[in-house]
Amino acid sequence: MTTAPPYRAPVEDYAFLYGEAFGRDLLEHSTGGALTASDAVDVIAAAGDFAASVLAPLETVGDRVGAQLIDGDVRLPDGFGDAYRRFVEAGWVTAEAPESAGGDGLPRVVSAALGEIWNASNAAFALCWGLTQGQILALDAAASPALRETYLTKLVSGEWTGTMNLTEPDAGTDLGAIRTLATPRGDGSWSIRGQKIFITWGDHDAAENIVHLVLARTPDAPEGARGLSLFVAPRVLVNADGTLGERNAITTVAIEHKLGIHGSPTCQLAYDDATGYLVGELHGGLAGMFVMMNAERSAMAFQATGISDRARQQAAAYAAERRQGPVLGRPAGTPIAGHPDVQRLLSSMSSDIFAMRALGVHVADLADRADEPGAGALAEFFVPVLKGWATEEALRITSDAIQVHGGMGFIEETGVAQHYRDARIMPIYEGTTAIQSNDLVGRKVLRDGGATAETVFAQVSATAGQLAATEHPTAHRIGVRLQRAVEASRRATADLVAFAASPRDAFAVSVPYLMLLGTLAGAWMHALATVAVLRRGEASEQDAARLASADFYTAHHLPRVHALAETVAAGEIA
Amino acid sequence: MTTAPPYRAPVEDYAFLYGEAFGRDLLEHSTGGALTASDAVDVIAAAGDFAASVLAPLETVGDRVGAQLIDGDVRLPDGFGDAYRRFVEAGWVTAEAPESAGGDGLPRVVSAALGEIWNASNAAFALCWGLTQGQILALDAAASPALRETYLTKLVSGEWTGTMNLTEPDAGTDLGAIRTLATPRGDGSWSIRGQKIFITWGDHDAAENIVHLVLARTPDAPEGARGLSLFVAPRVLVNADGTLGERNAITTVAIEHKLGIHGSPTCQLAYDDATGYLVGELHGGLAGMFVMMNAERSAMAFQATGISDRARQQAAAYAAERRQGPVLGRPAGTPIAGHPDVQRLLSSMSSDIFAMRALGVHVADLADRADEPGAGALAEFFVPVLKGWATEEALRITSDAIQVHGGMGFIEETGVAQHYRDARIMPIYEGTTAIQSNDLVGRKVLRDGGATAETVFAQVSATAGQLAATEHPTAHRIGVRLQRAVEASRRATADLVAFAASPRDAFAVSVPYLMLLGTLAGAWMHALATVAVLRRGEASEQDAARLASADFYTAHHLPRVHALAETVAAGEIA
Repeated sequence: MTTAPPYRAPVEDYAFLYGEAFGRDLLEHSTGGALTASDAVDVIAAAGDFAASVLAPLETVGDRVGAQLIDGDVRLPDGFGDAYRRFVEAGWVTAEAPESAGGDGLPRVVSAALGEIWNASNAAFALCWGLTQGQILALDAAASPALRETYLTKLVSGEWTGTMNLTEPDAGTDLGAIRTLATPRGDGSWSIRGQKIFITWGDHDAAENIVHLVLARTPDAPEGARGLSLFVAPRVLVNADGTLGERNAITTVAIEHKLGIHGSPTCQLAYDDATGYLVGELHGGLAGMFVMMNAERSAMAFQATGISDRARQQAAAYAAERRQGPVLGRPAGTPIAGHPDVQRLLSSMSSDIFAMRALGVHVADLADRADEPGAGALAEFFVPVLKGWATEEALRITSDAIQVHGGMGFIEETGVAQHYRDARIMPIYEGTTAIQSNDLVGRKVLRDGGATAETVFAQVSATAGQLAATEHPTAHRIGVRLQRAVEASRRATADLVAFAASPRDAFAVSVPYLMLLGTLAGAWMHALATVAVLRRGEASEQDAARLASADFYTAHHLPRVHALAETVAAGEIA
Repeated sequence: MTTAPPYRAPVEDYAFLYGEAFGRDLLEHSTGGALTASDAVDVIAAAGDFAASVLAPLETVGDRVGAQLIDGDVRLPDGFGDAYRRFVEAGWVTAEAPESAGGDGLPRVVSAALGEIWNASNAAFALCWGLTQGQILALDAAASPALRETYLTKLVSGEWTGTMNLTEPDAGTDLGAIRTLATPRGDGSWSIRGQKIFITWGDHDAAENIVHLVLARTPDAPEGARGLSLFVAPRVLVNADGTLGERNAITTVAIEHKLGIHGSPTCQLAYDDATGYLVGELHGGLAGMFVMMNAERSAMAFQATGISDRARQQAAAYAAERRQGPVLGRPAGTPIAGHPDVQRLLSSMSSDIFAMRALGVHVADLADRADEPGAGALAEFFVPVLKGWATEEALRITSDAIQVHGGMGFIEETGVAQHYRDARIMPIYEGTTAIQSNDLVGRKVLRDGGATAETVFAQVSATAGQLAATEHPTAHRIGVRLQRAVEASRRATADLVAFAASPRDAFAVSVPYLMLLGTLAGAWMHALATVAVLRRGEASEQDAARLASADFYTAHHLPRVHALAETVAAGEIA
């Protein structure tokens, strides 16, 4: 029986991305010299050690035992509570929270990378961290001083955890259908009544309190999503002196039996005259919730990268040890990693994961530099692309990791199937791929006639041209492939913009268009890495591997841009 | 909570495929008039009724409870044993078995379709049927009269079931590493000692006996796969008068805890001086086993079609009922099936499933006409393409079926996740996709320099040309797209053949090449269907749907041929 190898955080990749790949020290640039790439890499390495020793060993119990609902309360799998306490004590919750909220305010390029590491080592655990961080941002943006004092400080310290309460049985993608009702009590608090479902970490025993951020309708509010307001509702009520009082009237009715992420309790919550407090403006709930939602969407790309890389590491370790049959053109005893198709699968995974990681860092860096002209708009353009594309790619990557194992991959004890199951939720939650693609096509391409897309294409084209002009044969080839893909992407964008008057045509191919952009952007990341390797002028083994990875990506993944461009041109077929 | 809709067998599709799509009555042609398409459709409809009423209702218990090992014996989930008895009584085992073995000898185009139906309604159950049928073929080809009398008759009657014992802990893909030893006892029987793993339906309580077909090494046999011989070893020994005697020395050591097909017991069997009988020639075991293996590989394509269609049916039913938000350009209250991207997912699934089903029928028809010049070679060419491509497509289709359900798809009670889990084994067992692609590239393309592939391309090109020449705008567009894809496929084949002197280049892109051929052949099936619809000259709703499906396939799936051709050209990247 094979066992999963220890988790190894991709410290070298982050060092390369922070310091070299983009032609500058990302940290030094965005923090004005307060931090350098080297400082950030130290944080990544420390997180990797913590994740490997504390979080990764709990992934199996999280999957096999899972969270359980016992007498109305959720019990986490053994070890999760202790791990959470150590996580808080080590300062990992506070590290990422913004300084305005009392946190250490790590730049996004670093906190995003931490997200990869927590998710790779234990995706079910990481969801708690991710939701708490998202709620911190939402409260930091909109909460009153009193709410900040009572709730935000406890979230930032990690003493309490946060959740996002949107979905109801008849209100999933369509938030306008939310029926949970909040009625003012006249004492500053609100009475909340309704049913919320799919509430991740909606109840658990790892922290003394849980803060729910709840979207609800108020009496006489406008119809639809514009009538929603945002409330904070704690699991345990907080006394005026900050001590904990009675349980709030929030009941965990059930937890879901899911395909994956079993360690993460997915709760059905019943609000029955529960006490809540308004966050921000009345009827301004959607905007407040979207602060949290957008943070979650960006974070999802790193969850996708993390789960994918964990699956890849397990496949690579198995392939390096397992021997089976003679390997074509290789000495006797060569492990299966030498078989041409196993090598193809491993290269496919690793080149795709680098592309996801690098694009994630690029988008986080754009967000860190949002005050620079154009950077904020580019970040917003990329968020749906990154979330949609990376989470879809993770499905293939985790599937390929099973394939490398052959029949052993299908046996649950091998452990690799868990990643395949865990990954399947990612293209669904925090907005399905279709929702991402509608955001992309509707708000970010059709609305400006493709102008922002063209800004991206011009940047990609510049990198492609730079490579195509070199005499290095691999780099030249990468540049030529990328240049052709940019042209196909421009045609696809023009085709899409031409559908503006018949929007069903545009939205019938919006997911293919999103995948096209993600695939192209991934190749651009590899092209930038290639430029950086050439600039360095060395020829280390790692440099050669980066060039081979870029070569592989542009030969195996990038050509899909041409196929997708043909699909986009077709519009709706019905 | 949603529930799965009743299973509905694709009777109309088979009527179209048998009678019209290929321009002739396939049954009348291959049986010399003994059967007609209409007769075959009656069989399909009856099987569909049986499957819907008896097999499909057991799929959930098969998944949730699964097969269990209790005191050394496997207990099937409740209802499986009874269903098996009804399956036998209804004559479904005997129907497919060749007449030479005492069966009804249904043509392969019909038995293949039955395979789709059994697998769609209950894939775990269907594996028992498939393995028994495969063993019937193997024994019919090689067993002595005595073994035929004792074992084959009982398999054909359905009283006993069959298994395939190849894999050992160190011998998966590499059968040459098999160490199970068979020693002659001098009385005509052999003593078998060894460990076999991954034995599907290796033990169960639905039939009074189980016949294991075992690959083993004999003393002084040549090294590797050429030293293997084939043996029959029954679970219960058979007395000279045909009555059942004592248990054979075969122990079920464990059953696997798998990602899917939980209702199918996957056994570790220990042979400890077990009694076996030689089948066919000493050291001729691999050839005998390959009769069975090739039957299983063709059957796998129909398992892929069946599981995919079941998942699609559930997604389509959910999408037709679930309402969520306003649908662009459609009246209020339109269910989510009207959302452009849900429509895309459903069309993607259904057009791909039709392509898989039709190509499966085409290949079965070639096998039915194997005495016609060239037909056998074409069937052999297509078998690995069909197995590899269809089982890989099934991963995406079952994934898309989850996506249509949104968050509900991730909840196990919804039932659609089962298909995603069940499907994951298909690209692995009966030879991984890499093994299929090595067979295709090594034996069927490089060996004849691409001549058989060109025979296929010429046929596809003729159909494409026929459509491109019409004035019907949809048909014309389909023909033009297909013609371009044929040209790309010819270039890819030439590139592959040029790698003959550097075989690692060829085998590094053999899976992309296999997927290219499967995708192209799927489009060819849609093109033939389009020709048949135009020939009929009607304009029924179903005809319009067939044209739209062909249009969709050639816009969304076929363009991947161009991407894959670029990948094939790249050869090995390392």
